[in-house]
Order: sequence, then structure tokens, then C-alpha cells
Amino acid sequence: MSVETARVIEVADFREALRRFLRTSERVARQSGLTPQRHLLLLMIKGARDGSEKSTVTELAERLQLAQSTVTELVSRAQEAGLVDREQSQSDARVAHLRLTPEGEDRLERSFTALATERAQLREAFAHLDDD
Amino acid sequence: MSVETARVIEVADFREALRRFLRTSERVARQSGLTPQRHLLLLMIKGARDGSEKSTVTELAERLQLAQSTVTELVSRAQEAGLVDREQSQSDARVAHLRLTPEGEDRLERSFTALATERAQLREAFAHLDDD
Repeated sequence: MSVETARVIEVADFREALRRFLRTSERVARQSGLTPQRHLLLLMIKGARDGSEKSTVTELAERLQLAQSTVTELVSRAQEAGLVDREQSQSDARVAHLRLTPEGEDRLERSFTALATERAQLREAFAHLDDD
Repeated sequence: MSVETARVIEVADFREALRRFLRTSERVARQSGLTPQRHLLLLMIKGARDGSEKSTVTELAERLQLAQSTVTELVSRAQEAGLVDREQSQSDARVAHLRLTPEGEDRLERSFTALATERAQLREAFAHLDDD
């Protein structure tokens, strides 16, 4: 292998840190009463790029890299669980904007805050990934 | 939610970048003829922390965060596929050191090199994650 061993060690360390981060994130989500997928769904709705805190299914499918039908199903179940609300777009009646209910906000916030340390640790692991 | 929206957007963007990275990594591994799990196994064997390029099942289980029995199984199948070799430790006959065969090195190198751009993009996404 012509790649330097030191670089392989860096990348291996980074992938290990990434696995730890994802596992902790899943555990924390469950502690806030959210499946890992639902946790990411709420995060992406709240973190809509334009700062409107509203998202469409199309945008979410792109960001989560899931099929639209999967996202539609996830959203319906989150709505049934009282975590997400739909409101019709005022400019296009075919489009529904999604936003979190107060309960959805509350559960996301718990995960979000609880993961601050893990994000910091991952950033630290990243600082050592200095190839290319 | 008392967390600032700007921070939620940063974290949502970062999680999106992470999902893209992991998906691309899986695709690239498959293109090198490796399942995603086997790809990480080879990376962890080659990237042994002490720079020896040798690993034990115990170390691998810790780094991959998998059960020892799962790693033993993964290693056996990688050995059957001609990607990994076992050699008995000279200091402790109960311990086997694992290392990559030339074919294992070759496949890992292909993935490793092909993912350089994605690692750089992820690092970029990380640079914007400035909370805590």
C-alpha cells in the first residue's frame, strides 16, 4: 500500500470516533423518546436552511437522503405522535410546510443539548484528520 | 426551543454532510469489492494505533464497537476471501495478530484514495460547526 501508515492511522481513528458519535447520538435520541431517524427528521425540520423553521417533504427527502415515500411516512407518524404539524403553504396550496409542535421542540432540544459534548469530541477527532 | 436557530441550522447541515459522507463511503467500498463493514475492518487492521499494522480481535471489537463474536466472524470471512492473514503472536501463543494480504491492501487502498475528496468535504462541513 503506497498510502503512508500515519495517514491510515489518522483516518482509522477518525472513523472510530465517528462510530462512537453515531452510537451515542442514537442512544441520546432514544433517551429523549425519539428513534434515531425521527430525531434527524425533527432536526432537519427545525434546521431548515432558510431559517424559516419550516420544511417540505421534498427538501427533507434530499437532506435525509431518503425516498420521498419514506419521508412522507416518517412525517405522518411524527404527526400522529404529536411532534410535527402541517400547514398549507400560502403561496402554493399543493405544498405543505412542516414545523415542530411544542412537544417536538422539547424532545429535539433535549437531544440537541445532550449531544453538545459529543459534537465537541468529534470536532476534536477531526482536528487530527489532516490528510489530502 | 431555547437553542438558537442559527445553531440548529449548523448542526442540521453537519448531519446532512455526515449522511452524505457515509453513503458515499459505502458506495466507494462496494466499488472496491468490499462491504461497508469489511471496508472498516480492513481500515482498522491497517490503521492499528501502534503503527504495527497488526491488530487483535479484541482491539478491533473495541474500535468497531462490535461484539467480539461478530468481529471473529468478520475476520474469518475476510480470511476466506483472501484479504486478511492471521499470525500467532510471538509473545503470547493465545493471541493472533491480523494483517492484510496484498489483495486486502490493494482493495483498501482503492477505497482510501477514492474517499479523499469526501473526507475533505466533510472537514469543510465541520469547519462550520461552531457551537458549544
